[in-house]
Amino acid sequence: MTLRVGIVDTTFARVDMARYAIEELRNNDPSVVIERITVPGFKNTPWAAKQLINRGVDAVMVFGWIGPSLTDKITYAVASMGLIMLQIEYDKPIIDVTVHEDEARDERELFDIAVDRSRKHARNLILMLRGELTKWAGMGLRQGRPDVGPIIR
Amino acid sequence: MTLRVGIVDTTFARVDMARYAIEELRNNDPSVVIERITVPGFKNTPWAAKQLINRGVDAVMVFGWIGPSLTDKITYAVASMGLIMLQIEYDKPIIDVTVHEDEARDERELFDIAVDRSRKHARNLILMLRGELTKWAGMGLRQGRPDVGPIIR
Amino acid sequence: MTLRVGIVDTTFARVDMARYAIEELRNNDPSVVIERITVPGFKNTPWAAKQLINRGVDAVMVFGWIGPSLTDKITYAVASMGLIMLQIEYDKPIIDVTVHEDEARDERELFDIAVDRSRKHARNLILMLRGELTKWAGMGLRQGRPDVGPIIR
Amino acid sequence: MTLRVGIVDTTFARVDMARYAIEELRNNDPSVVIERITVPGFKNTPWAAKQLINRGVDAVMVFGWIGPSLTDKITYAVASMGLIMLQIEYDKPIIDVTVHEDEARDERELFDIAVDRSRKHARNLILMLRGELTKWAGMGLRQGRPDVGPIIR
Amino acid sequence: MTLRVGIVDTTFARVDMARYAIEELRNNDPSVVIERITVPGFKNTPWAAKQLINRGVDAVMVFGWIGPSLTDKITYAVASMGLIMLQIEYDKPIIDVTVHEDEARDERELFDIAVDRSRKHARNLILMLRGELTKWAGMGLRQGRPDVGPIIR
Repeated sequence: MTLRVGIVDTTFARVDMARYAIEELRNNDPSVVIERITVPGFKNTPWAAKQLINRGVDAVMVFGWIGPSLTDKITYAVASMGLIMLQIEYDKPIIDVTVHEDEARDERELFDIAVDRSRKHARNLILMLRGELTKWAGMGLRQGRPDVGPIIR
Repeated sequence: MTLRVGIVDTTFARVDMARYAIEELRNNDPSVVIERITVPGFKNTPWAAKQLINRGVDAVMVFGWIGPSLTDKITYAVASMGLIMLQIEYDKPIIDVTVHEDEARDERELFDIAVDRSRKHARNLILMLRGELTKWAGMGLRQGRPDVGPIIR
Repeated sequence: MTLRVGIVDTTFARVDMARYAIEELRNNDPSVVIERITVPGFKNTPWAAKQLINRGVDAVMVFGWIGPSLTDKITYAVASMGLIMLQIEYDKPIIDVTVHEDEARDERELFDIAVDRSRKHARNLILMLRGELTKWAGMGLRQGRPDVGPIIR
Repeated sequence: MTLRVGIVDTTFARVDMARYAIEELRNNDPSVVIERITVPGFKNTPWAAKQLINRGVDAVMVFGWIGPSLTDKITYAVASMGLIMLQIEYDKPIIDVTVHEDEARDERELFDIAVDRSRKHARNLILMLRGELTKWAGMGLRQGRPDVGPIIR
Repeated sequence: MTLRVGIVDTTFARVDMARYAIEELRNNDPSVVIERITVPGFKNTPWAAKQLINRGVDAVMVFGWIGPSLTDKITYAVASMGLIMLQIEYDKPIIDVTVHEDEARDERELFDIAVDRSRKHARNLILMLRGELTKWAGMGLRQGRPDVGPIIR
């Protein structure tokens, strides 16, 4: 059956993350159908995700970009709550692929995090929908950074 | 079809932001119909937005103004959660055009942020409803400040 | 038509704020009907507000009093969320008239804030229900303190 | 009519607070019926409160115990939100009788707060259900500490 | 009747906590049926828990792993809220077995906390479902650490 993935992204973001995720989705599933809505910033991503769910997508990827201030963090918290509520209400997984400006020292690092996180979460989505992630449970995987691995005793 | 936009603003705000947004909406769509409710402060904006949704608007713009204290930030978080819940429940986008007093050094800067953010988000609303924002995805647009642009590698 | 206003207050508060608000409501609308529930503290105000909505009031005023600790602020955030949810769900405005102990230097100032805020929000409620607040939109009105006014450029 | 009170408490708490509250409830209303569920920690108290509401109790008392870390405070905020939602949804008051480890200097003080708060809130519950708290509105009552009283001008 | 327990865990975690919990569940109830979903990180645990509830499990255990940053804590708060909402809505208990990286000094301690917490909460779940936790109410039990015990006066 054809996989339909919703893409929500923003004009606030400083990297076109969706592009890398879509490329990765197509590499893994050439028949994937993409539906995309772009909003100004993270606050409208729950609305956009809901519109895509209304259109019948199987899952949604949300590409957020959050500034370093307390207000920015509040925005992240509140809209994330909306994304959680949608997943519970409509039984559709939403993968949050958000970059926070305070997690990198410079623009180069932000860019690399954004691309790595977008690609890896695109693969995560496909594996999760196939129920194939359990073999990596507890393995310390990371998106945006190298994996840290499991703690060995 | 006629576009109907709801406007929610407050007597707490120190700039009549709605005025600039309405002007911008009319410049972009002369037939736009405006419905407006003014409340004392941000805490009642979800109620007002809901009343406008009940009256059949297609989208809502909320013009908030938030003080610098922790209590003010809590108010912002909590009422923002209400605005998210409304968007999910009723499938109407709500653009939050809030100015935070701690994001500027003086009144002059606050004023400029308020006007710029109001005008740009009015245009954002129209473009978003037409599905025309994707060409600016990841382009680092800002409202209230100059755009920062995409990170180029 | 007779206006019915619900009043929720607490035994935790150190000023009988409702008394000033009720006086102000009656001065502005002699036929107003008051329904009142007193609870121990702010955490039970959403329940009480809901009981008053069940009894058919047109609007609710909640008179909170919040201590200075992080735990007190959490209580404020969480119960405020409940008050927002009620307004959205039942289409009744709830005016939150809360005094925070950390917003004043001494008891005298707390008292004055409490009385001023209670009276002004009673008037706000009546004006809001009549749709007459828009003429003060963006005018920098304050409750508990003198108005700061609009920013003039 | 027989009053039925639900009791939710935890194995995490360091004082059997419910015991003092039940004693106080019985002193004030010998015919009271108690239904009790004990959970590991505060995170499961909304689930337990809901089970007691399902069994038909008139009100619930929740005896929480919260550690001093940020994570503990988050747990308190999140589960408290659940307790607020239950009160609104099912029209049953829930009295939160939580002790925070950071509100006392030593174990002796924690113990005294726990017992005082449990007893006083048991009385509050009965008075609130009878609608008899309004005479103490704004009187600065405290649970866990001596009352601070109203501000006199 | 056969007990069915849902297990939600993540590839972000650095210890395969579910393994210890499943072992413990089977030691206490050899006929227990396990349903397991692995997601990338804590943000998708409410969705996964909901899927398991849809499949008819009696209870869910969620094995989270949270980093030390403010953003990580926000993620924890928001997804925890989702887990609370599920418990209220569907009357199924969800035991949150989350390890926070900032609660230990080194990897060795994190590992020990993870294993201890997983085993003890597996036992807690079975006792809670049997209604047998009340005898330990107020006894200062801990998961991940040794019990601290009740305060004796």
